[in-house]
Amino acid sequence: MAEPLTIYGDPGSGNCLKVKWVAAHLGLPATWRDVDVPGGGTRTPEFLALNPAGRVPIVVFPDGEVLSESNAIIVYLAEGSALVPGTPFDRARMLQWMFWEQYSHEPYIAVRRYQLHFLKRSPDALDPKLAERGADALRLMEATLARTAFMAGPTLTLADVALVAYTRMAHEGGFDLADYPAVRAWIGRVEAGLGIGPYGALA
Amino acid sequence: MAEPLTIYGDPGSGNCLKVKWVAAHLGLPATWRDVDVPGGGTRTPEFLALNPAGRVPIVVFPDGEVLSESNAIIVYLAEGSALVPGTPFDRARMLQWMFWEQYSHEPYIAVRRYQLHFLKRSPDALDPKLAERGADALRLMEATLARTAFMAGPTLTLADVALVAYTRMAHEGGFDLADYPAVRAWIGRVEAGLGIGPYGALA
Repeated sequence: MAEPLTIYGDPGSGNCLKVKWVAAHLGLPATWRDVDVPGGGTRTPEFLALNPAGRVPIVVFPDGEVLSESNAIIVYLAEGSALVPGTPFDRARMLQWMFWEQYSHEPYIAVRRYQLHFLKRSPDALDPKLAERGADALRLMEATLARTAFMAGPTLTLADVALVAYTRMAHEGGFDLADYPAVRAWIGRVEAGLGIGPYGALA
Repeated sequence: MAEPLTIYGDPGSGNCLKVKWVAAHLGLPATWRDVDVPGGGTRTPEFLALNPAGRVPIVVFPDGEVLSESNAIIVYLAEGSALVPGTPFDRARMLQWMFWEQYSHEPYIAVRRYQLHFLKRSPDALDPKLAERGADALRLMEATLARTAFMAGPTLTLADVALVAYTRMAHEGGFDLADYPAVRAWIGRVEAGLGIGPYGALA
């Protein structure tokens, strides 16, 4: 992979930042192209030709192949690195948390943040399930991180990359991370391990 | 893996059937334990001790380790088999569709089916997004299957296992598969490849 990848993403999207962080952490040459999602950037004919699902992030490889779904992309990029455990069961535990992130965490924590922070909706106008299930997700992370340093075990893996993306922004979705001290400490460990600054500094 | 796995699942859940099918297809000895989800079977102290996320399916291995998330489980079970492509990019394409299934297909097609078929809600009482986004998912599958025999390429992979689980039940969610002829033909190919009967026969 000496030729650069092209990452199409929205810099406000945690899903897109996952891909940017992993490429940078692994030293993969990558070009970032901004896609303005709220402005319709995933609905243009040019973008839909690259990803008919109309979602970011995508990665376009030098041979023209396109891959979508943030977690599938980062598994592909990081295969063989320390971010992916070497033993089959530890890999499975990593994937377990990555699927859980997309099904039981992102649809509540990222969606509530989007509605509050970007769409400027009033908290009273939101579906109460977003707060309830987001808190369920944070509680499960807190219990997990009370036992191990990282989500899938003792070392930093892609499970942490996937889950930190929106957890570190959760306050923008109205979740108070002061209630989750193990999660807060873990966010710092993951940011340090990935070599990214704390949220609020430039991502 | 000579000692049997224990699969905890609800036989009405496509997510649980994925695990049962893959274990059977690979000839892995497995014991099935029914969990009655609508009856609260995932909320008992015993079940929550196995999976604090309170969801089925889970697999308990002979050493006592527990794995959750249907798609993570089937990747672990099928690694090294013909259901998982051998080349890294083809594996990535498979995972792409498996993440897409959990984020952009199951939350609409399976959820609408659950509300209509099990909860017996009236179609008028449902969130219209369920029908809209479910149809979006079926359209993208139809376009994909007009070009290749299976979702991730020319051979049957776990992407097909993951996606067939609720697609073959989509009519119970009010989706008319007559509008998606390539999807219908693919369902037959996947059922034949997995050695399971058509839906409606015992799963």
